[in-house]
Amino acid sequence: MESLRVALGSRSYPIHIGAGLIGRAELYREYLSGGSAAIVTNAVVGPLYLEAVKKGLQGARITEIVVPDGEQAKGWETLQRVFDALLAARCGRDTLLVALGGGVVGDLAGFAAAVYQRGIDFVQVPTSLLAQVDSSVGGKTAINHPRGKNMIGAFHQPRAVIADLATLDTLPERELRAGIAEVIKHGLALDAGFFQWLEQNIDQLLARDRGALAHAVRRSCELKAAIVATDEREAGARALLNLGHTFGHAIEAGTGYGTWLHGEAVAAGMVMAAELSLRMKRIGKGDVARVRALIERAGLPARAPALRPEEMLSLMSVDKKAAGGELRFVVLNAIGRAELRGGVQEQALREVIVAAAQ
Amino acid sequence: MESLRVALGSRSYPIHIGAGLIGRAELYREYLSGGSAAIVTNAVVGPLYLEAVKKGLQGARITEIVVPDGEQAKGWETLQRVFDALLAARCGRDTLLVALGGGVVGDLAGFAAAVYQRGIDFVQVPTSLLAQVDSSVGGKTAINHPRGKNMIGAFHQPRAVIADLATLDTLPERELRAGIAEVIKHGLALDAGFFQWLEQNIDQLLARDRGALAHAVRRSCELKAAIVATDEREAGARALLNLGHTFGHAIEAGTGYGTWLHGEAVAAGMVMAAELSLRMKRIGKGDVARVRALIERAGLPARAPALRPEEMLSLMSVDKKAAGGELRFVVLNAIGRAELRGGVQEQALREVIVAAAQ
Repeated sequence: MESLRVALGSRSYPIHIGAGLIGRAELYREYLSGGSAAIVTNAVVGPLYLEAVKKGLQGARITEIVVPDGEQAKGWETLQRVFDALLAARCGRDTLLVALGGGVVGDLAGFAAAVYQRGIDFVQVPTSLLAQVDSSVGGKTAINHPRGKNMIGAFHQPRAVIADLATLDTLPERELRAGIAEVIKHGLALDAGFFQWLEQNIDQLLARDRGALAHAVRRSCELKAAIVATDEREAGARALLNLGHTFGHAIEAGTGYGTWLHGEAVAAGMVMAAELSLRMKRIGKGDVARVRALIERAGLPARAPALRPEEMLSLMSVDKKAAGGELRFVVLNAIGRAELRGGVQEQALREVIVAAAQ
Repeated sequence: MESLRVALGSRSYPIHIGAGLIGRAELYREYLSGGSAAIVTNAVVGPLYLEAVKKGLQGARITEIVVPDGEQAKGWETLQRVFDALLAARCGRDTLLVALGGGVVGDLAGFAAAVYQRGIDFVQVPTSLLAQVDSSVGGKTAINHPRGKNMIGAFHQPRAVIADLATLDTLPERELRAGIAEVIKHGLALDAGFFQWLEQNIDQLLARDRGALAHAVRRSCELKAAIVATDEREAGARALLNLGHTFGHAIEAGTGYGTWLHGEAVAAGMVMAAELSLRMKRIGKGDVARVRALIERAGLPARAPALRPEEMLSLMSVDKKAAGGELRFVVLNAIGRAELRGGVQEQALREVIVAAAQ
């Protein structure tokens, strides 16, 4: 087991990475002083790992809350069901909430923890690659609104993240690839060396080589933890982690949440961000080709769905990075060097959207 | 105009108290750098003060969101309507939300600001005495759940509180009295001298003497600001401000939210807390008599509704002050000296509940 630390003063917490961690009681014990825990999981992950987590929570009074699988579950109705279950079980402020599952469960359960009785402690137990490398680290929690993804949420840091690499063995192929999209994002936005490592090791990752996965998870978490430590609430550098996300969120919303996986939309969005950077003369054609090639080798979509440019632009205009009504984009100045920029020409955006769908 | 300050480091903010403040642009200007503001108000307060606040927000793009009046509006459905309106108007993270109204609007709009796009700035413009002396100061925001009041919420400090004493002129008599309940609470929990001042000046407050109101609002805000500065998230001293609230919340829930005003329930709850303190031999009969007398002179209920003890106990058991499944109560060691205590005997509680309804 390796442990990193997200340095956030009194809200600092460890990320534990290794195989066979979810049943280890010593990783939960210090957060269980209230004697009560509630596990939020979904109908797919629960049957696989709920018993192991319960072993880890030994001695605590445990409430199990199983929500439906899939992005559609990340909304008001499911959130209400979580609150109903917490209140029916008389869970107090000293209850530890455990989010057991992928990005949807982590975001939903994390938001429930953020606002239940004005905030309770929670631990992230991510069981998808996407959640291990991205969504479970950094305290962003949210649910979706019909008009936009993650529109309602909170910054609420977990007490710990327990990333058990063994849980990736049961991950469906498509979700493994979607997770790799976020791994690629960390290299592309922040670390040219890591991007190069990915070009060399993409086949091992797809083959679920545990050593390769361990490196990918650790390096992603290191990069993300360093950013979060300097900019917890996304006032600056943290926005760089949204590379590909402005386009990606619009793809997800435009096709209906759940049709494209988040990672798939981000993959196509990263190619679009690279194309936009090329049109803004910030990177060259060779850079765009490298981005496209790695994404295609990962089995991820490099093309966007055929949405009308007006629809894409409208969906992008509610993006949370907008400031003073102006859209801002994370663009590339090089592989491994992203920058948040305003003043993007609408014409360039239209060209990118049209070209991406062809 | 007088201005106090709530000292919370980077989240510090001023409370402005005076007559005729809500239209003064200089009190809003520094929070309007994004150029966008959304005013959340209700159907009763809006017609009276919306235009004045819009004058204060001159130059900004303004979105008006009018929600129904009353405690029933403090739930999911109304919150959803606020989000729908914010998104329909494409309000971004740099939008300033202005909460114009009493405690319900402040709690609801404050919670909307806490979680909309993971948190936006907001200013409290409280127009009821209860909101001016209590709910608009300290960053507690929430909505109700059918199983309990304020069960879903967040700590989200406003950028400023603008307490305009002139708005109290239009306050219905019953709501004025409900606000006085929270003023009494501040004296009873924290400041024997202020409690005594209230015994001497209760008639002037009921007559809306502006000098008396100014003193009551200022002293309440001072007392509350000092507590909040030492304990923002209610880990300790801040719980003392919940004197009468464990009983009060159960009364509100048991009679159906909105039947009793919050302040009325807190008034009866304070008498019950005093009776409990007497049974625990912490104060004398003379102290209980002073509490009861002041509450009766304020035209507030000193008796609880006839709810079954089992129902009251059940409603109280979801109280957010519960720890390890044990109920904790704010009790009195003297007038002006409250303390949070566990280990309260259920038998004593039953006696208090039965006696209070007779």
